[in-house]
Amino acid sequence: MKIETLAAGCRPGWTLPGPFFSDETVYQHDLERIWRRGWLFAGHTCEIPRAGDYFLFEMDRDSVIVIRDDEGHVRAFHNVCRHRGSLLCTEPAGRATRLVCPYHQWTYRPNGDLIACRGMQEDLDKSLFSLHPVAVEEVAGLIYLSFAEQPGSFAGAREVFEPLARPQGFDRARVAKVADYLVKANWKLVWENNRECYHCNVNHPQYIKANFDHYNSDDTSPRLRELMATATARLETKWAEVGVATHKETGMTLFPDAERNIWFSANRTSLVEGYVSETMDGKQVAPLMGDYRDADVGTLRMRSLPNFWNHASCDHAVSTRLLPAGPRQTAIRVWWLVDENALEGRDYDLAGLMPFWQLTSEQDWEICERQQRGVESSAYQPGPYSTYKEYNVDSFVRWYLKIVTG
Amino acid sequence: MKIETLAAGCRPGWTLPGPFFSDETVYQHDLERIWRRGWLFAGHTCEIPRAGDYFLFEMDRDSVIVIRDDEGHVRAFHNVCRHRGSLLCTEPAGRATRLVCPYHQWTYRPNGDLIACRGMQEDLDKSLFSLHPVAVEEVAGLIYLSFAEQPGSFAGAREVFEPLARPQGFDRARVAKVADYLVKANWKLVWENNRECYHCNVNHPQYIKANFDHYNSDDTSPRLRELMATATARLETKWAEVGVATHKETGMTLFPDAERNIWFSANRTSLVEGYVSETMDGKQVAPLMGDYRDADVGTLRMRSLPNFWNHASCDHAVSTRLLPAGPRQTAIRVWWLVDENALEGRDYDLAGLMPFWQLTSEQDWEICERQQRGVESSAYQPGPYSTYKEYNVDSFVRWYLKIVTG
Amino acid sequence: MKIETLAAGCRPGWTLPGPFFSDETVYQHDLERIWRRGWLFAGHTCEIPRAGDYFLFEMDRDSVIVIRDDEGHVRAFHNVCRHRGSLLCTEPAGRATRLVCPYHQWTYRPNGDLIACRGMQEDLDKSLFSLHPVAVEEVAGLIYLSFAEQPGSFAGAREVFEPLARPQGFDRARVAKVADYLVKANWKLVWENNRECYHCNVNHPQYIKANFDHYNSDDTSPRLRELMATATARLETKWAEVGVATHKETGMTLFPDAERNIWFSANRTSLVEGYVSETMDGKQVAPLMGDYRDADVGTLRMRSLPNFWNHASCDHAVSTRLLPAGPRQTAIRVWWLVDENALEGRDYDLAGLMPFWQLTSEQDWEICERQQRGVESSAYQPGPYSTYKEYNVDSFVRWYLKIVTG
Repeated sequence: MKIETLAAGCRPGWTLPGPFFSDETVYQHDLERIWRRGWLFAGHTCEIPRAGDYFLFEMDRDSVIVIRDDEGHVRAFHNVCRHRGSLLCTEPAGRATRLVCPYHQWTYRPNGDLIACRGMQEDLDKSLFSLHPVAVEEVAGLIYLSFAEQPGSFAGAREVFEPLARPQGFDRARVAKVADYLVKANWKLVWENNRECYHCNVNHPQYIKANFDHYNSDDTSPRLRELMATATARLETKWAEVGVATHKETGMTLFPDAERNIWFSANRTSLVEGYVSETMDGKQVAPLMGDYRDADVGTLRMRSLPNFWNHASCDHAVSTRLLPAGPRQTAIRVWWLVDENALEGRDYDLAGLMPFWQLTSEQDWEICERQQRGVESSAYQPGPYSTYKEYNVDSFVRWYLKIVTG
Repeated sequence: MKIETLAAGCRPGWTLPGPFFSDETVYQHDLERIWRRGWLFAGHTCEIPRAGDYFLFEMDRDSVIVIRDDEGHVRAFHNVCRHRGSLLCTEPAGRATRLVCPYHQWTYRPNGDLIACRGMQEDLDKSLFSLHPVAVEEVAGLIYLSFAEQPGSFAGAREVFEPLARPQGFDRARVAKVADYLVKANWKLVWENNRECYHCNVNHPQYIKANFDHYNSDDTSPRLRELMATATARLETKWAEVGVATHKETGMTLFPDAERNIWFSANRTSLVEGYVSETMDGKQVAPLMGDYRDADVGTLRMRSLPNFWNHASCDHAVSTRLLPAGPRQTAIRVWWLVDENALEGRDYDLAGLMPFWQLTSEQDWEICERQQRGVESSAYQPGPYSTYKEYNVDSFVRWYLKIVTG
Repeated sequence: MKIETLAAGCRPGWTLPGPFFSDETVYQHDLERIWRRGWLFAGHTCEIPRAGDYFLFEMDRDSVIVIRDDEGHVRAFHNVCRHRGSLLCTEPAGRATRLVCPYHQWTYRPNGDLIACRGMQEDLDKSLFSLHPVAVEEVAGLIYLSFAEQPGSFAGAREVFEPLARPQGFDRARVAKVADYLVKANWKLVWENNRECYHCNVNHPQYIKANFDHYNSDDTSPRLRELMATATARLETKWAEVGVATHKETGMTLFPDAERNIWFSANRTSLVEGYVSETMDGKQVAPLMGDYRDADVGTLRMRSLPNFWNHASCDHAVSTRLLPAGPRQTAIRVWWLVDENALEGRDYDLAGLMPFWQLTSEQDWEICERQQRGVESSAYQPGPYSTYKEYNVDSFVRWYLKIVTG
C-alpha cells in the first residue's frame, strides 16, 4: 500500500495503523525520507581525539568511517574502496594515519584523497577516486551525519544545543561504558515511548523518584506544584548569571513541533529535592563534568529526531542513539560519559554510574517489544492518545506524517 | 501464481504440485481461507479450571487470551490493548482476575470490558474499548476458537464429539506433560501423513503392535480378520448399553468427507488382543479416566480439520494440535492427559506414559521433514496415491481444494 | 530491474554494479542461465569406488544422488521419490544396493528403475516412475553434472582436462580431508577474487613464496624473468616426452574466454626453485600421486566455470567447488586428495598437507566477505580494473554478461 494512502487513513490524536510498524514498503520509505535525509547523531568528538582516530557508523546497508583528519576536523566517508568496493576498515573503531584497502592496498588520506594505487595503469587520475563523503556537523562535542546530498540546515540545532550543552563538556568527556541493544520494535515505537511519561509510574520506579515530569496537568497536586516551584527557583537563581532557561512545569517539555518542523530541542530542568544526579540514590557518583563548579545543576535534556537523546547530570551524561534495523527492529546504543580526567576505580565505578539509566532504558525496550507484538496483530486498531499525557506522542506522529508525506 | 490456476492443474488421485507446500501466496491463502475461517482446537478446559485462569493461543501474527470469566465461561480475546496496542499478557499461561496492560495500566475484566484507564480524558466512553473477542466453543472439555467474524456452525462437531468424548473425562483431566515441536514441513504434509497408515509398517514399530488399522483390503489375511472380529465383538458387547458405535474394519475410518464438508470425526475401535492402552507393552499405565470402570474400552479417536487429533485409551489421552508457522513450518503441541486425581510418581510416571505417542509422533515429524525437502525440488512432480491405502489422503486433498477454491 | 537493463549499464573494464551481487532477481537469473544450464563439478570418482556407493550433491532447492550403478557407471538422479516426493537418501554419503524410500518403501535400482511399490494398485506401470535423471560426465576422475535437459557439449573440456589431469591419478586418489565453508559473498565475487593475483602480495604470504603468477608485466624484474625461465626450461625438458605444454610467463594464464565461450582451462606451470609442492616449506608431504615418478612436476592447475578449480602438486591435489547459496552467500567445499595407497600417520599427516591451501583459501573467503559488504553500500559505484593485473577478472565479467544476456 502506498504511504500516502496509509497516511490519509490516520485519525488525528490516535495511534498509527499497524502497517506503519511492520510493512517493508513503509520501512523503505522511512529510510529514504527520514533516515537518509535528516541529521543523524553518530557519536562524540571525544571518541576520536587524535588525527586518524576513527569509528564506524553503520546504518541499513551502509558503513561510514567517521575520522579526524590531519587538520583536526571530523570527516565522514563511505567505508567503500573506489577500486572494487571492498570495505576499508573492518574494526568498529581504531586509528589509521592512512586508510589502506585490505584487498589491493589502494591508499587514502583521512581527508578522503586517494594517494596510492600500485598496479593500476599509469594514466589513472587519482583525483577522480576520492572516498565518497558524508556530510558532518559538530556541535558541543556531538557529531552528526547526513546521507543527504543537500542536507537541510543544521543552524537551528546548533543554536539550541551549543549554549545548553557547552557547559556539560561533551568535548572533554570520557566514554565510561557503551551498551548495545537490538530491540525488536519499529523505531517509531521507541520514539513514542520516549515522548510520554504516562507509562513511568509503574514501569520506571527509579526514574520517577528523581524527576517531576511524569506528573501532568491532571494529577499535579498543590503540594507537588510547590515542591517543583522551590526546586526550580533555586536552580534559576544559581544559573541566572549564564542566562539558562529552565522548564518550569510538570509534564514533559513540548517536542517535536510538527508545524515548524522542529526536530531538535534541549532544556534544563530541576530534579526532585535530594537528587543532584540521576542515580539510584540521587547522590553524585563521579567528578563534576565540563564547566560545572557546583553539583546543583538539575538535569540537562537534549533530543533530536530521528535518533538521539541525552540525559545529563552534573557528574555524568547518558547518550542514546537509535538506528533502524528493519521494520521490526531498532539497534540502540547507550553511552555513559564522565569527565575526561575521571578514572574508573578511583573517581567512579560502573556499579554506581550505570543502573539508573540502564534499568530505565531496558524497561523501555521491553515495553516497546510488547507493543510491537501487539500492533502486528490482525486485531490491532488505532487507539486514542491521552490529551493530558500523550501530547508529545501525538506531536511525534504529526511530525512523522508531515515528513513522510511531504 | 493464483490458487485457482494451481488448483485447476491438480490431477485427481495424485499428490498436490510443489507450490502448495512452499509458496508464500498459497500459504497466505491457506491462512485466510482455512485457518482464519475454520474452528481451531486451542486447548482443554481442564487447563483453566478457575475464574481468571488463562492461556495464550498464538497463530500467525495473532496472540489470543483464552480465559475463564467470572461467570465460569471460557472466553477468548485478542491479546491487544485497545489503547496503544501493547500485548496485555506475556506469560504463556497464568491467572489474572483483571487484565492490566503493562504499558499504561488500562484494565479489563475477564469478560473483555474496559473498567479503568487512568489518565485519559474524562469523556472517553469505555464501552467502545472492550477487548476484541474471538469466537469460542466448548465440547466435552475441548476448547475451539474461530477467528471468523461469522464462524460456521459447530453443531455437527458437537453432536459427534459430545457422546463419544464425554466418558473420557477431558473436563476432569490433568495435563501430565506438554511437548512442543517446530516441524519443518507444511501443515498439509503433516495431515497427509496422518491420513494413511501405509507408512506404518516400517516407520511405527510401536504403533502397529497395538492397532489394526495399518492393514488394508489388500493385505488383510483371514486370520487377521478373525482376530479383529473377536476384539471388536468383545468391545461392542461391553459397550452396547451406551450405544457406542465402533469401527469394525481394518484400514482407517473414512475422513474427511470433502463432498459433505465433514471436518470432524470420532470413533471408538478395538486394540489388538493383549493391549488395553496405547503403551509400549499394552498395559495400563495410569488410573482409569473419566467415566470408565473397565480398562477394556479400546481406543477413542477424534480428529478435526485443520488442526486437531486425539488418541485416547482407558487411562490416558493424547491431544495433538497443529498451527501453521510459515509455508515450510508447522508448530505442533502434544498433550498427555491423565485423570485429574492421578498423581505423578504415585499413580503414573512419564517414562511409562509418554513413549508410545512420543516415538510415534516424532517418527512422523521426521517423515514430514524429509517429504518437505523433496517436494521443494525442481524435479518433484505429483505422484499417484494408492487406492488401497491412501484413500483418506486423497479425501484430505479434495477437502482442501474444495475449501481453498470455494 | 531486468538483467538486460542492468547489463546495458555496465562499463567495459569496470566492476559490475551493486545489484549483481545482492539482488534476488539477478540471483534467480544466475541460477537459471548459469547454474541450471552449465556443467557443474560435483566430486571425484574415487569417492564412490563400488557399485551402490553414492554421495549427495545439493544446490539451491535440489538434492541429487550421485551413485555408481551395478555396471560401474556413475549416474545421477534427483533425490525425490516418484510416489509422494520424499527424499530417498538423507545421509550426505553412503552405500545402497537399492534406493528404498523411507516413507512407503518404493524401491529403485541404482540405475533409477522403480522395481517395487508394495501397496499400490496392481496396474501401476513401474516404467513410468523411474527416478528423474541428471546428466553426468566423467573426465580423468572428476564428476560433472548438468541440470539442463539438453546440456551443452562437454567435449572441449574433456579434450583439455584428460591429457593434463590423467597423470595426476584423480581416479586412484583418496580424500584425506574435506572442509566446508559458507562464505558470505556472492559467487561472482569469489570468482573475481580467483581471477587475479593483484591481491596476493599482502594477503597470501604462503602462496607467493611458491609461485610466480602474482608478478605481472608491470613488476616482473629481469632477475625474476631469468628465475622463471630456468624453472620452466627444467620442467619442459623433463616433460617433453609426454608433450605437456607449460605456462611460461609471469601473470596468470588467460581464462575465461568470453568471446569463444571457453569455460574450462588447465595448464602446468613451474614452481619457484626449491618448491616441489604447494606446502609451507615447499617440500613433498605425501607419496607421489598417479603416474608421477619424479617430484619435479611443477603445479597442475585446472578450473571450470561456474564452480571448480584445482591446484595439484606431485604429492597432493586440492579441489575447490562453489555452489550458490543465495545472492549473498556461497557454499564452498575444499577437498585434499592424496594417492589411494597413502596412509594417514604413516605416509602423510594433515598438519603438513593442509595449511598451504587452507590458509590461502580462508584468506580469500575473508577478502570476499569484506567486498560483499562494500558492494552492497548505497555509495558503491563500479571501479576500474587494472589492465596489468585484472585482465582475467575483466574476462570473467565479460563471460558472465555474455551468458546471462545471451
